[in-house]
Amino acid sequence: MTISDRYDPGPQLAHAGTIDLGTKNLERSLWFFRDILGMEEVERVGDTAYLRAYQELGHHSLVLTQQDDAIVNSYGFRVKRPQDVELFNEELQRLEVETVEVPAGSERGRGTAVRFLVPGGDHPFELYYDMDRPQAAEGLRSKLPSNSSTRRGLGVRRLDHFNVQTSPSTINEAEQWVRENLGFKRREFAYLPDSPSTVMASWMSVTPQMHDLAIVANRDEKSGQLHHLAYNLENMSDALTAADILRDLDVSFGVGPGKHGIGQAMYLYVHDPGSDHRVELYAGGYLIFEPDWEPIEWKPVDFPEGLTWYGDPIDVSPGSRGRDTTGSASL
Amino acid sequence: MTISDRYDPGPQLAHAGTIDLGTKNLERSLWFFRDILGMEEVERVGDTAYLRAYQELGHHSLVLTQQDDAIVNSYGFRVKRPQDVELFNEELQRLEVETVEVPAGSERGRGTAVRFLVPGGDHPFELYYDMDRPQAAEGLRSKLPSNSSTRRGLGVRRLDHFNVQTSPSTINEAEQWVRENLGFKRREFAYLPDSPSTVMASWMSVTPQMHDLAIVANRDEKSGQLHHLAYNLENMSDALTAADILRDLDVSFGVGPGKHGIGQAMYLYVHDPGSDHRVELYAGGYLIFEPDWEPIEWKPVDFPEGLTWYGDPIDVSPGSRGRDTTGSASL
Amino acid sequence: MTISDRYDPGPQLAHAGTIDLGTKNLERSLWFFRDILGMEEVERVGDTAYLRAYQELGHHSLVLTQQDDAIVNSYGFRVKRPQDVELFNEELQRLEVETVEVPAGSERGRGTAVRFLVPGGDHPFELYYDMDRPQAAEGLRSKLPSNSSTRRGLGVRRLDHFNVQTSPSTINEAEQWVRENLGFKRREFAYLPDSPSTVMASWMSVTPQMHDLAIVANRDEKSGQLHHLAYNLENMSDALTAADILRDLDVSFGVGPGKHGIGQAMYLYVHDPGSDHRVELYAGGYLIFEPDWEPIEWKPVDFPEGLTWYGDPIDVSPGSRGRDTTGSASL
Amino acid sequence: MTISDRYDPGPQLAHAGTIDLGTKNLERSLWFFRDILGMEEVERVGDTAYLRAYQELGHHSLVLTQQDDAIVNSYGFRVKRPQDVELFNEELQRLEVETVEVPAGSERGRGTAVRFLVPGGDHPFELYYDMDRPQAAEGLRSKLPSNSSTRRGLGVRRLDHFNVQTSPSTINEAEQWVRENLGFKRREFAYLPDSPSTVMASWMSVTPQMHDLAIVANRDEKSGQLHHLAYNLENMSDALTAADILRDLDVSFGVGPGKHGIGQAMYLYVHDPGSDHRVELYAGGYLIFEPDWEPIEWKPVDFPEGLTWYGDPIDVSPGSRGRDTTGSASL
Repeated sequence: MTISDRYDPGPQLAHAGTIDLGTKNLERSLWFFRDILGMEEVERVGDTAYLRAYQELGHHSLVLTQQDDAIVNSYGFRVKRPQDVELFNEELQRLEVETVEVPAGSERGRGTAVRFLVPGGDHPFELYYDMDRPQAAEGLRSKLPSNSSTRRGLGVRRLDHFNVQTSPSTINEAEQWVRENLGFKRREFAYLPDSPSTVMASWMSVTPQMHDLAIVANRDEKSGQLHHLAYNLENMSDALTAADILRDLDVSFGVGPGKHGIGQAMYLYVHDPGSDHRVELYAGGYLIFEPDWEPIEWKPVDFPEGLTWYGDPIDVSPGSRGRDTTGSASL
Repeated sequence: MTISDRYDPGPQLAHAGTIDLGTKNLERSLWFFRDILGMEEVERVGDTAYLRAYQELGHHSLVLTQQDDAIVNSYGFRVKRPQDVELFNEELQRLEVETVEVPAGSERGRGTAVRFLVPGGDHPFELYYDMDRPQAAEGLRSKLPSNSSTRRGLGVRRLDHFNVQTSPSTINEAEQWVRENLGFKRREFAYLPDSPSTVMASWMSVTPQMHDLAIVANRDEKSGQLHHLAYNLENMSDALTAADILRDLDVSFGVGPGKHGIGQAMYLYVHDPGSDHRVELYAGGYLIFEPDWEPIEWKPVDFPEGLTWYGDPIDVSPGSRGRDTTGSASL
Repeated sequence: MTISDRYDPGPQLAHAGTIDLGTKNLERSLWFFRDILGMEEVERVGDTAYLRAYQELGHHSLVLTQQDDAIVNSYGFRVKRPQDVELFNEELQRLEVETVEVPAGSERGRGTAVRFLVPGGDHPFELYYDMDRPQAAEGLRSKLPSNSSTRRGLGVRRLDHFNVQTSPSTINEAEQWVRENLGFKRREFAYLPDSPSTVMASWMSVTPQMHDLAIVANRDEKSGQLHHLAYNLENMSDALTAADILRDLDVSFGVGPGKHGIGQAMYLYVHDPGSDHRVELYAGGYLIFEPDWEPIEWKPVDFPEGLTWYGDPIDVSPGSRGRDTTGSASL
Repeated sequence: MTISDRYDPGPQLAHAGTIDLGTKNLERSLWFFRDILGMEEVERVGDTAYLRAYQELGHHSLVLTQQDDAIVNSYGFRVKRPQDVELFNEELQRLEVETVEVPAGSERGRGTAVRFLVPGGDHPFELYYDMDRPQAAEGLRSKLPSNSSTRRGLGVRRLDHFNVQTSPSTINEAEQWVRENLGFKRREFAYLPDSPSTVMASWMSVTPQMHDLAIVANRDEKSGQLHHLAYNLENMSDALTAADILRDLDVSFGVGPGKHGIGQAMYLYVHDPGSDHRVELYAGGYLIFEPDWEPIEWKPVDFPEGLTWYGDPIDVSPGSRGRDTTGSASL
């Protein structure tokens, strides 16, 4: 009996694991994620495709579903133990949060999940534990056992994080809720300049990453919006190569490359031409191993430098908002 | 009351935090770690210097102590909660492992630690929680709150891991002991070719890093040996720059640069010219967020590719051993 | 007798070789070029310092002269043969361009030069052949015979090019003059949007580099202005490292990093804090080996993409001009 | 009339331009060069394919010809002026070197060439001037006018150099002949350890590259052998990415990645699986603009460091020779 067997840490999230994106043009989205970013199409069932990046051993991290509304159908988080799905379900009921059981296999390769909308945020979260680990097709398989397939395309290697938008009127509730009930820790954050006790942006994690989840205030007062999902690249120079190639293709460029002061990672925002969802190619960043990390607050005067330490500047002026992002499914 | 307040995870390690290296030539070691690698000399007390890398906010990760024997005086691990130092102490006594209390401040900036020798390994481990967070001197201070100082020299940014050597006759005991009693998880490993149930090398972590600690079999049947300590670089290209510069300076080159198949990180091994300890400059690698990670076993036929996926090959032939490494202090 | 001995190619320029910058604060300029960019201070004579980058074997590429006006004292070009200095002198007199002989050693380490102002541009050019090749001081010397010293600081390795500004009213004359009389070839160029037969910018070279010299139209109708001088970095990732470090130091950032579509090189513009001259750190780019290269014309609609293919965008709007640059010495 | 119009530089080579490789398996060679390295297949005529890299505007740099002998059919060099093909032909006849006229279009897209075997080396050289500049197919075309197509695959961007092998008994003759009659300049070189006036290796160029052509002594006393052809990558980190991917594919790895001390460039040697020819992926390196460059001699004691400054070491021991390379076509 080891020391950890004598204690019970309770239910915990392990990491951001899956996202199900609606797309109006599945073939175009597959061209982007599979042929350009280099992901593996593990399985296709009707109008739904399952993809993973080369360093992911599980069945998928990305689900692309052809549908009329290019919304996000779910954000999936893996839990740490098999029993944690049910333990979280009980906890949610105790908190009077409505839940739905998503049966095993309704998302191919994945076990039973508990689904709910984040209170205050309306983002459809799904918590699951089981995930198949299929081998890649023979021609794609990597010789390295820690990779599922060979590196291809722009070389995205794993899902990194989600960035979601919530109305300023409920963002504090949503941000506090995920911290208190899902175990997210606040790592860096900023308040709205004109409402200094309202969260403008909060970067949070259940892992040593600076963030697995960011919640940011939506200018249009809408909750349940995706700002972007991020895939991880091995090196910052990979973001330069990606920028070079994407500039030359029919892919809508958002902003980047540049380096965030917040999180110290390289960013490049582009849009999936099939779904128009914003995708960040993300590289580097610092890891937080300190258990007593003090959240870093960014004051308005420093915020531009926090968004863009160097490189293509992210516009934070009131007038700017970039492309409108699409929403999320209901429960 | 948040969900995590209702459970007790027990005492846990947070990360590899400090190493105290004996050196016969403190000035030469300072030239190497401070002037070439780019670390900050935070404090000097007599013949002892305290250094940290630019992304470390704590008082130090490296202690250089001028002494006749260039041995390792201690390997320090930070624990997750203040009470975990005492909880581990109690656990060690329950296990009949002799412990010594290291008073707060005997290592400057650090709180009380419990010290013991790893059973089977004889490596002097120290577990602590408290660590001061001094600001860097004004000229060195970074504008980024997640960095203590500006990037300088070869740009090492944080302590990454320890690799220690143990006699093959006790390595299984030591490796099992740290897993069962300190919470290390085996991530990748290999057995000795001619003794297939004896660990040749085991890479283990308490964090999502592939390893915070590796234990490898010592060819000379000695326990308590350091193989190397590793500092982390931001990008793989930084390892090329480091190789370029170190080749041109009076620094003894071990092996590298190259990329490990095991862990997928870039390596460059050099020797501190003051102490002759082996130091790895380490970049990249994959992170493990899966709670049910299945340890990867490397068979002898694949092991060379595991050590060197590409680049300067690490010699694994029986005759090779590189430079003899120095030992560890006793309790 | 080899084949080339039977022909006479006439006087030719070999490459951009030296620049003499006036600075109001020599110590601050030395901090920037020597301590941060990593150049070697080869010699100091009174208030004048001579520096070279680690891949330059000649005595210097940069002269820093303490003086009240932070202007450019000269742009030096090396010629291909010893007799070419005098042959160019004769040619200039034939063209009725006033010349001055700069005696050997008045710029330390350099032989006799012929000095003149570019007709239409008023930029003080000096053509020379002889240049000493001193060894670096022992501690700095590289083991590689193709490098004069070890790589240090941000790793600038050689002078790359000059970018000078000229009044729109005479820019066509200046640009044509250097092509016809100094052998520069036009590689890429653009006309002014509102004056489509007036050169807005012309990138020219006597080497396979895309440009050794650029002439651009000055918004204030002034000739004889420096826009920037550029030093070359080995890799694009070096520009990211430089940006990271310079952001954290007391160095005025211009624009960058980003990649030019014109020339396909990475750029980072900063200001020498001693002289306020703009310095570009430049990496990559394509080489032109084709003898019949057709100059690439950039139309106004494509010009923004030509300046910034990706990264921090260079502002080309009429209102922008960045920091005013300083002028040049007279004959 | 510009200054250069008043002089005649005589016939000169512009750059290494084309190579025609025999391959026993055209489809496999196309998989390698087109699908993996990322070259464009511009045209196919029967069993012959024409390819170019993304930064090459001419019709092709690589010809792949299906044939029983995987030898090199020709090494093509472009000359500087249209008349230089005939001027070189006259010069060769004056030197009593047998020549053959290769009619325009027999290599698609290329004009008339003069073909001969290098005296002492037996390498089939072809000198040409005219080369078509077709646009790439619409889906491949780059937005950048200095690129013919978008960057794809491992991102080779242009032919860089040839490295050919010659018998030690005639290497001095061959090396001297190309310098005296084709204008190559010796940049770096070494003599055979046991025959100190016989060239072991000579790196030569007609451009500022450190070498466009290397001639090295063949251990088997054979002339007319290819050692390797090299394609250029934009950055050193691209060689790491290439190594990572090629390790995982069914491609025979030679040696690398590593950095040459000679030339200061990153190398990675692999074998085209169709033809077994050795191909170097090459990045970085220094440029020589000095007209009076003094060739660097590498003594035997320093030669290993010259071949491998850092990284996977190139074996220079007498017993090693790597894979036998194939020969060249006759006149």
